[in-house]
This record gives sequence, structure tokens and C-alpha cells, in this order.
Amino acid sequence: MYAMNRWYVAAFAWELQDKPVARTLLNRPVVLFRTRNGQVAALEDRCCHRSLPLSCGTVEQAGIRCGYHGLLYEPGGQCIEIPGQKVIPAKARVVSYRVVERNQIIWIWMSEEAGSGPGFKAGAEPDSESDSEPPEISAHDDPRYKYGGGVFHYDAPYQLIHDNLLDLSHLGYVHARTIGGNPKLHMAAPTKVESAGEQVRVVRWLKDSEPPATYAAAWPFKGRIDRWQEIDFQVSYLAIWTGAVDVDSESLDDPGRGGFHMRGFHGITPETETTTHYFWTLASNAHPDRPDVSEMVCRQTEMTFEEDRLIIEAQHRNICRFGSQHGLDIHVDAGPNRARRIIERLTSREPG
Amino acid sequence: MYAMNRWYVAAFAWELQDKPVARTLLNRPVVLFRTRNGQVAALEDRCCHRSLPLSCGTVEQAGIRCGYHGLLYEPGGQCIEIPGQKVIPAKARVVSYRVVERNQIIWIWMSEEAGSGPGFKAGAEPDSESDSEPPEISAHDDPRYKYGGGVFHYDAPYQLIHDNLLDLSHLGYVHARTIGGNPKLHMAAPTKVESAGEQVRVVRWLKDSEPPATYAAAWPFKGRIDRWQEIDFQVSYLAIWTGAVDVDSESLDDPGRGGFHMRGFHGITPETETTTHYFWTLASNAHPDRPDVSEMVCRQTEMTFEEDRLIIEAQHRNICRFGSQHGLDIHVDAGPNRARRIIERLTSREPG
Amino acid sequence: MYAMNRWYVAAFAWELQDKPVARTLLNRPVVLFRTRNGQVAALEDRCCHRSLPLSCGTVEQAGIRCGYHGLLYEPGGQCIEIPGQKVIPAKARVVSYRVVERNQIIWIWMSEEAGSGPGFKAGAEPDSESDSEPPEISAHDDPRYKYGGGVFHYDAPYQLIHDNLLDLSHLGYVHARTIGGNPKLHMAAPTKVESAGEQVRVVRWLKDSEPPATYAAAWPFKGRIDRWQEIDFQVSYLAIWTGAVDVDSESLDDPGRGGFHMRGFHGITPETETTTHYFWTLASNAHPDRPDVSEMVCRQTEMTFEEDRLIIEAQHRNICRFGSQHGLDIHVDAGPNRARRIIERLTSREPG
Repeated sequence: MYAMNRWYVAAFAWELQDKPVARTLLNRPVVLFRTRNGQVAALEDRCCHRSLPLSCGTVEQAGIRCGYHGLLYEPGGQCIEIPGQKVIPAKARVVSYRVVERNQIIWIWMSEEAGSGPGFKAGAEPDSESDSEPPEISAHDDPRYKYGGGVFHYDAPYQLIHDNLLDLSHLGYVHARTIGGNPKLHMAAPTKVESAGEQVRVVRWLKDSEPPATYAAAWPFKGRIDRWQEIDFQVSYLAIWTGAVDVDSESLDDPGRGGFHMRGFHGITPETETTTHYFWTLASNAHPDRPDVSEMVCRQTEMTFEEDRLIIEAQHRNICRFGSQHGLDIHVDAGPNRARRIIERLTSREPG
Repeated sequence: MYAMNRWYVAAFAWELQDKPVARTLLNRPVVLFRTRNGQVAALEDRCCHRSLPLSCGTVEQAGIRCGYHGLLYEPGGQCIEIPGQKVIPAKARVVSYRVVERNQIIWIWMSEEAGSGPGFKAGAEPDSESDSEPPEISAHDDPRYKYGGGVFHYDAPYQLIHDNLLDLSHLGYVHARTIGGNPKLHMAAPTKVESAGEQVRVVRWLKDSEPPATYAAAWPFKGRIDRWQEIDFQVSYLAIWTGAVDVDSESLDDPGRGGFHMRGFHGITPETETTTHYFWTLASNAHPDRPDVSEMVCRQTEMTFEEDRLIIEAQHRNICRFGSQHGLDIHVDAGPNRARRIIERLTSREPG
Repeated sequence: MYAMNRWYVAAFAWELQDKPVARTLLNRPVVLFRTRNGQVAALEDRCCHRSLPLSCGTVEQAGIRCGYHGLLYEPGGQCIEIPGQKVIPAKARVVSYRVVERNQIIWIWMSEEAGSGPGFKAGAEPDSESDSEPPEISAHDDPRYKYGGGVFHYDAPYQLIHDNLLDLSHLGYVHARTIGGNPKLHMAAPTKVESAGEQVRVVRWLKDSEPPATYAAAWPFKGRIDRWQEIDFQVSYLAIWTGAVDVDSESLDDPGRGGFHMRGFHGITPETETTTHYFWTLASNAHPDRPDVSEMVCRQTEMTFEEDRLIIEAQHRNICRFGSQHGLDIHVDAGPNRARRIIERLTSREPG
């Protein structure tokens, strides 16, 4: 179960070059492609003739051509050419999905009904909600930051990733080599959890602490630091703002505070009920004396996420073999549990 | 579902040397072997004692010996030795299948009843139909031709391969590098489809066309060519005669016409409901000036079939995830659809 | 189905160093570890908080610490630390199993009830049977013998391994290169089968026979030999005493007879209904002139067991595809069939 009628990340802009990309999103096989005039499109990944994935075909100026018998589809899903045949039946079409490219992210809108079969004009007449713009991820286009990112595939359901990101207390145990630091300090950090509507916000401060390895490498701190973690959860993604200033030098409440900043973007798009696409970027402000540090921060972040993946996939396999049952809650679970209640509310009120 | 009580290809003669061959045919695990006096046999691949596959055993003069406790079976399926035990119970036997070797092909006859258990004397008293000879594949023993071939394993049901072979319009898209040529020409070629009884015949002419790469390499055409494709479908195999003469030099109706000839044999034997053995050979008439061309043609054909396999397996995976539903028919589907109706008729009237 | 409330082998002592070992035993995922003071423990392999396998964690002086949020468990299964939280709920515990280390073997006791959920104090108050010591495997601590061993994983149910070990007539076919010898001789060897309670005993004599390869390499026999095989089956393991003396030199009834001795230990612990852990050791008495022969014997035995594994896994795959049905019994099946009746009796009278 996952919430439909939301903007989910389908891809990063740089993934769509001259080849189609096949990706199952919210349990629907989709082909993503960019026509030669730059337009991004998302279609049901199946030719309506003999079911070959359209992603086995080729991208042309006007759309995508099937690799078996050459049927050509325009970005709206209509077949516009059947080689050797003059008449094109009206039902020669596939489902198309509304996609928007913003801040180098390709967002897709999927409604519940679109799955009801080829020919359904899902997305053709978007409702008021899907008319809305997908969210702005401003750090991607902010000159103060450099960013990089990637896509992880998880053999685990998406909510285990929500849990992980909303509870950064695990850093001390899982990421000791990079952004971790003293485990006990992480577990004992004062934490503030707020929620409103479909959002959850978790703020944690680790004041007067040792800079962990990545921080020390990235920024010329004088000694101990005041460190913050601000996690903003939305149904389909999280924005996590972390960073630090020299100890007692600035207020962690000041939105314009200096120091070292990392702005993480985490698009969590269910592939199926039990597998997930994890689209991440990490933007950081390189210190003038260390201009190349953003790349290093990005590489270390990727390593960190790989550590998370191992843990979360092991957790999922274990839940599968023991059977799902709600475990013991401890103090760190306040944020994750609020997010779970939001998802539960959204999925229980929707059909299907 | 597949038609029983037909001759299916089980193996090529050259596969059966001194080792047994394990192969599941029409959902039945079979061990094929050639005794030391040259006789070919096919037995249920399970020792009646403790179920080890007989294909794990060894071939002897008199039959095949189990690799666990040494029970020896003669080609008719009767156990003729239990080491250390004097009495051999009558029920110490396994199902045997009737096999015939003809034109270097091992054909097997399987009736519906044979699966009902060990001890059933299936094939021991063949009915009138199985007394019939398996088909002759004369190109294998015709001095004008040289041939080669191989066995492909498909993770796809057999009817998708029928579809593919009965509709050669896909050549332009799938086989552009070898036997393809201009896609639009293929899709627009005049096509004649006939059927009678359990046979379908599709004839297509591509007159006044460019020789594709393989043709140009194989035969010294003067320029443009008249090309033909004659596809004869039978329930368990297809014979496909293709070739070309210099443009306007001969009638494509003349059975004795010259030029470059390729005679393809395609034994399509279901392994299970969703997997298939594809036994193919390709015989061609080398031009006197190019004596080694048959090998090249054979290698290119194998490459072509590998291209088909990728397409068909992708098609099958996609049908599995989207659910089977009849797609849109286009003009090229007349031949495949007639074959599907024959199979449907045969499998619906048979039990099981 | 397998008999509960028995001592099963969980591991060898040398497997438990400073890392936890994850192993599913009788369908229950277990983490085995040795605390820094040397105590061996076995817990349900799942943290009661968010289900990460405890085997992903680290071993400390006091117990095992979860690798996600640092919960620490003592060997009895109670959580004794939740970092960052003062109160530890009583239900913060996992199932623990009674384990005993004896003769370098880690034995585990599992009762039917232990699976009923975390928090159940299985093993905490062992009943009279589990108070009993696990069996003594004296050859492991007998100065006359040297031994080695290992753990095989079988993709086959445990009873197929029982069958194999209780019927050594297969040696001639499966192990021709090592301990086999003349197949017909093996199949015809006089065999005595006895059973009492939960035990089966099979004794076979191969008198006046050729020493097989391993025997000839291990011991300076003068020529032909009198060979014995004494197989003692228990529900969870077998002890197999084999060996030989020079022909007509001693009675095979004399418990103190000389010659070459191999004492095999075979712990057969179901992993699941269809997979098995096979813990084996082989102890032999090296001849004074050939001091290093025990290692060679051990290596050859491992090769032999690998031959068995190939046969038994092929047998299992074949039973799966043909469907389980009782095959034809022959003269060698008396021992295996008695063991099967014992298991059947034990599993039918137990719930679950």
C-alpha cells in the first residue's frame, strides 16, 4: 500500500539521454524517455500490439518506436504509425503519465485509476491537484551549493527507509566510519518532533560534540562543534538539512547561520510493495579553502547510504521470515511512527 | 497446454554420444541415451527405487544404470538387474517413450496417458498414429545443401516462437544487421496466408529489393533481387524456405528456381507451459565460388535467433507482469492467428 | 516434520570465535555467539525493536549488541541496555535456547513451545529431558585418534541423508574413487539390522575383500582385508564405525580389535523442511609409520561427502518435480526404513 495522487520522483534529468529508461513505479511498469526535442514522457511500458516492452525500442523525434514491428507512439500514448498499415485504430494507444522536470528531477503523477487498462486517458485531463507543480528542491539550483547524487535500488519496502531517515539516532552504530561519531551521544541527543497535515519534522541538536570524520574533512572547524539535524518528511520524499558551526559561535535557531551545511534530498518511490527506488542527492557548501570538498562529501554520503541499505535489506529479510509484527517502541521512534500514521491514513481512505 | 500425440523433436542425433542427456519435454523429465549398439532410447528420468535421475547414471551395452544403487534398465524401461538381489519385481520399471531417429533428428512421441505413472506401458503398444513415421527433413540429407544448427532454451512459452516465425515482418526491426533490410519494405510485402487441417502456409515476396547483408555475402547477386519467404507451419515444427534470385530473372513460382536458398528447420518443443526447447538447423546451397559460405550463413542465423530470443523473452516477461490479454491485431498477424486457432482446437478437445 | 525436544548439533566449537554466527535450526533463525568470557549462547536472531538480525551486531563481554540502535542482550535473551533510554521494559527480550558445549560440539535443545513468540522463556526452566547431557562423542577427545570435520549445507530434507548413511551399499557406485571398491561386493555384503527404541543399528561385513584406495593409502595391510561397517543411528545424529584388519587375522566381533579404524560423526540438523545442515567429523588412528594419514583420510572423506551431496540433492530435485511417492524397496532399504518409522512415530505424536 502506498499513497497515490502524489508527485513521486521517477528519475533524475541526467538519466534520460537518447535511450529509453524502463522503471517500475508504484507497481506500474513505465518507460521514460526524452524525445529529440527535449520533451520528457512516461508511458505504460508495453506495446499494445504484442506486449513487447516499449523500452526495448528506440526514441525518435516524434516519440518511441516499438522494437518488434515498429509501432510508433507519441508522448501522449497514442500510436501514430503502424508500418505497412494505413488505418490506425483509435484503441491503438497506451497509458501515459503526467511528468514534470524541475530542478533536474523528473516527477511523475500517478492516480489510482490509471491502472485500469490501456486506453484510459489517465493524466490527459489532470485534476486540480495534479495541476499543481511538483515541489521545488532549491539547493539543486542554488549557487552556494554543489551537489551530486544517484539512485539506489532497495529490496525492502519504502517505509523501512522512511523509518531510517526519520530516526538519525542510528548514525553512531551504522555509520561509525563517516558521519557517525559517539553512539551514546546520538542516542541521547535532545529531539523535537512535530507534525502537521502530511508532514513530519524532526529536529535534533548535538551540541558541544566532536566533529565526525566527514565533517572534519569538509570544514576547518576550530575544535568542538554544535551540530544540527533537521528532517522534513513528506509523503514521497524527505529533505534533510544537517550541518555544524563552531561550538557556541552561533544560534542553531538562526536560519541564516554559517558553518558547514549539507542539504540532502531523498526521493523514496515504491517500485512494488516490497522494493523501492531511492533517489538521493547531497548538496554542500564547500569552504573557500577546500573547493573540491563537495565531491568527497558526496562520495562519503553514498558509502553511508550503502551501509543503510545493507541494514534495511537485512531487516526486511528478517521481517519476511519471522512474519511482520510490531516490535517494541523505544524513544527514537516518535518521528518514524508519526510518518507511519500519515501513510496509514492516506492508504486506508483510498480504494485498492 | 500443448498438443499431445504428435512427433516432437527431442534432440539432434549428434547430442547423443556416450553420456545420457536429461531433457524435460512436454513437462515430463526424460533421459535420452544411445546404447553401445547405437539404439536410441527415452525413459522417464527417475529410478523407480529412490528417485535419482537416471541421467546421473551411466550408459552400458544393455541400457542405463542408476548412479546410486546400480539398478540397470533396458531401453524399453524394464529393470533387468538389481545388484545383490535375485528377484526383480515386475513393477521395477519406468515409463519408456517411443523415439525414432531420422535425418539426424531424434523424434519422440508422447501420448496423454504416459504421465499417469510408472509402470504404465506407454509407447509399448503404439497406436496407429504413432506407428506413422516422423516427418522427413530432406535438406539434411540433400547433397546440394550443407547445414548446421543448435538448440536454444527459451524462457518463454512455445506459441510466442510460433508467432515470431510465422510473421517475418519483424525482420526489418529485429534483424537489421543481418537478414533484415529495409523495415518498411518488410512490413509492406505482399503476403499470402493459407491453412488446411493442422497446417498454415505463409508466402511473402519482396521483389526488386536490396540484398540484405547476409545475402550479399553469401551469393554473387548482380544487383537488386527478388526475394521470397515460404513458411510452412506444423504443430510441432516449422519449415521455412527463403532465398532470392537476381531481379526479374526467374519466376518465384517455379519450384526449381535457382539463386540462393536457405532451408530452415525449427523444431519447437515445449519444455513446460512457459519454457521451450528450440531446435534449429539452417541448410544453404553454397555458390561454387564461395564454398565456405554455408558456415557463415549458419553463424549469422544463430546470431539472428539470439536476437529473436531476447525479444521473445522480454515479451514473455512483460506478459507475465501485465497479465495475459489479447493485444491489438495488425495486418501481419493473420498467419500467427491461424496457428493459434489450430493449437486451441487441438488442446481444447484433449483431456488434461 | 522433525522431532523436537532432542539435542541437535548447532555448530562446532571452533566456529564460534569473536563474530556471531547466524544459522537457521529446525526452522528457527538463531544467532550463536560466544561472549568474551567464553560462554556460548543461542538467541532468536531478531532484535525485539525493529527486527534487525542480531547476527548483524557485535559481541561484547556481556552479550550481543544490535547493529542498528545498539540494544544489548545478555545470553539469557533479556535486553540489558537501550542506549539513550533509562527504563528497559520487561518485554524487551528475545527467545533464548539452551546450548551445551561438549567434545567440541555445540548442542542445542529446542522444544515445540519456544516458537510461540518472543518473551517466552523457553529453555529457562528445562524439563527433565533437557537437563540430560547431550551425547558424548568420545573419539573427539581420545588420544588414539586424530579428527577433522566440517559443515555441509544440503538443499535436501534431512531424511534423505539418513537414508544414505544407513545404507552403505551405495559406496560402490557413488564412491568408486575413494572408499568404494567392488560395487557388487557392497551390494551383496551380509547385513544385520537391529533397532530398539529410537535407535537403529546396521552391521555389515565385507570379508576377504580388496582394500579400497583410501584404506590402502592409510594402513599397511598385507593383502586382502576383513572390513566392517557399524552404523548407529540416533534421531539427531549417526555414529559410523568402519575399518578393517588383515584377512582372517582377528575377529570382527572383538570390540578391541586392531587394524585401521575410522569413527565418523554425522550431526544431521534440519534447517527447514527441505534443507539440512550436515555436521561431520572423521577420526582415525594413524599407523605409527604413517603419522600424517589422518589428514589425508579426512580430506578424502570430505570429497566422499561431496559426492553424496550431489546425488542426494539431485534426488531431492527429482522428488520435487515428480511428486513424492514411495519408490520400490530393495534389499538394502531395511535400515533406512526402520529409521523412517522412528521419525514418523515421533513426529506424528507431537503437535505442530
